[in-house]
Amino acid sequence: MNLAVGIDVGGTKCLGVVVDSRGNVVREVRKPTPTADHLVETLAAIVRELGEHSTVGLGVPGLISRDGVIRSSPNMVTAIEFPVRELLANELGEPVWCDNDATCAALAEWQRGAGVGSHDMWMVTLGTGIGGGLVSGDALQHGAHGHAGEVGHMVVQADGDSCPCGQRGCWERYASGVGLSQLAGGVAGEEVINRARSGDAASLDVLNRYSTWVALGLANIANMSDPDTIVIGGGVMENADILLPRIQERFATMLYAPSHRVHPALKSAQLGERAGAIGAALLHLHD
Amino acid sequence: MNLAVGIDVGGTKCLGVVVDSRGNVVREVRKPTPTADHLVETLAAIVRELGEHSTVGLGVPGLISRDGVIRSSPNMVTAIEFPVRELLANELGEPVWCDNDATCAALAEWQRGAGVGSHDMWMVTLGTGIGGGLVSGDALQHGAHGHAGEVGHMVVQADGDSCPCGQRGCWERYASGVGLSQLAGGVAGEEVINRARSGDAASLDVLNRYSTWVALGLANIANMSDPDTIVIGGGVMENADILLPRIQERFATMLYAPSHRVHPALKSAQLGERAGAIGAALLHLHD
Repeated sequence: MNLAVGIDVGGTKCLGVVVDSRGNVVREVRKPTPTADHLVETLAAIVRELGEHSTVGLGVPGLISRDGVIRSSPNMVTAIEFPVRELLANELGEPVWCDNDATCAALAEWQRGAGVGSHDMWMVTLGTGIGGGLVSGDALQHGAHGHAGEVGHMVVQADGDSCPCGQRGCWERYASGVGLSQLAGGVAGEEVINRARSGDAASLDVLNRYSTWVALGLANIANMSDPDTIVIGGGVMENADILLPRIQERFATMLYAPSHRVHPALKSAQLGERAGAIGAALLHLHD
Repeated sequence: MNLAVGIDVGGTKCLGVVVDSRGNVVREVRKPTPTADHLVETLAAIVRELGEHSTVGLGVPGLISRDGVIRSSPNMVTAIEFPVRELLANELGEPVWCDNDATCAALAEWQRGAGVGSHDMWMVTLGTGIGGGLVSGDALQHGAHGHAGEVGHMVVQADGDSCPCGQRGCWERYASGVGLSQLAGGVAGEEVINRARSGDAASLDVLNRYSTWVALGLANIANMSDPDTIVIGGGVMENADILLPRIQERFATMLYAPSHRVHPALKSAQLGERAGAIGAALLHLHD
């Protein structure tokens, strides 16, 4: 593989990288995420600033169809039925690959990060919301319409808290960064973790309850698809040292029939905030 | 494909079939399910009664490893770490294929039933409990250790009813045949449905609440893996005429971002009680 460009379209910034044949990032460019009507122009500018490349891939949050149309994106509310792949390909005069940002991150962690060697893997990103992507039987899964992995809206508490999506009790109400803050009565997640590190008992209790919610959703995922590895990323997992052992401990008891099976390994993501962009650069190899 | 034998090991009976090259059942034999220590002998007797065949497949409830060891089976509590595949192969002097019964049923419905033509399919069986199996990217999925599809123990109500598995609020507490009866205050599921057919308002209300629980779990499945088709089988669905429209109506509003995507088709299973045995006979083609 020659040099490939990948761009992760985030809620606040677009991160573009150039990845070499070993999957290493050799250049990067960041620009603020514009409104939908300036998106293609900004993406084209990033590609041009990054220079020489053989292929361009995009990771976009929300529901992206297999032909690269943004159906609906929580961070870009004006991008409804927005054919970003076709528009950028026309602007650049070359083909563009496109997938959901969490699916891109899953691809990157599988090929270059914590999931190397896995045959059946989930990646879950615990950020403002929760995203997910999966590999089954050694193949990146897109689902029938490109929307596989929308695990944040799995209902885990049928009569639970209202979610902006219209349902009640979605997993991301409890197990995202926002969920952590809500469990702490509105204290910011980072502050809860700092207090817990200082030994504050109430904050440690919040982390324990939070870890139980994370583990519950991961157990649901594992019961349904029996992965060998679950990679956990997203901003919350920058505190993996204090969170991951708690999540692992609870998960080990919440999996179905835990004493009669091999458990998946729960691992912290390795590629950090660049996972989505690196995965976007690899998309053309896994279409 | 020549004539293949498939046996579905059920809670009360073992159903063996001979399937021809078109997937049609040409012979069948039923025997009561014995205790684990007589299981291999009974299975061998079924194979011999069924006569000529080129291959033998088994569908077994519970956690079955990829090498055909029953790790744990709710209906056969003495079968722990029981190597049924190897024991039957030794007894017959020929190779035996083996998988979870719901995975076998999914394979049968995909190849010969309601899921023909699907690329990404789930099958869910609503019986005493809830089983499941799945096809992703045109391939039957087993998971890393053979346990993919254990969807009945997906937690949908974190502080809900206790489940014998040790968790609370598992989907099968609400959406199985037992769940239907519990929603009706203990009235048998079949009776609730008969009363609803006669226009009994309270029973119709139970069916509506039951359909909401079924739809909730199906929406979780669809959010996670974005299938084109979900096939619903099991004893409860013998009443698909009254249940399926209710489930479909609720599902259509519970899927994430329902107005921005193509919905999976929810279909009633076509192969009835023979699905598991037919799928077991097809296993050798999809290992």
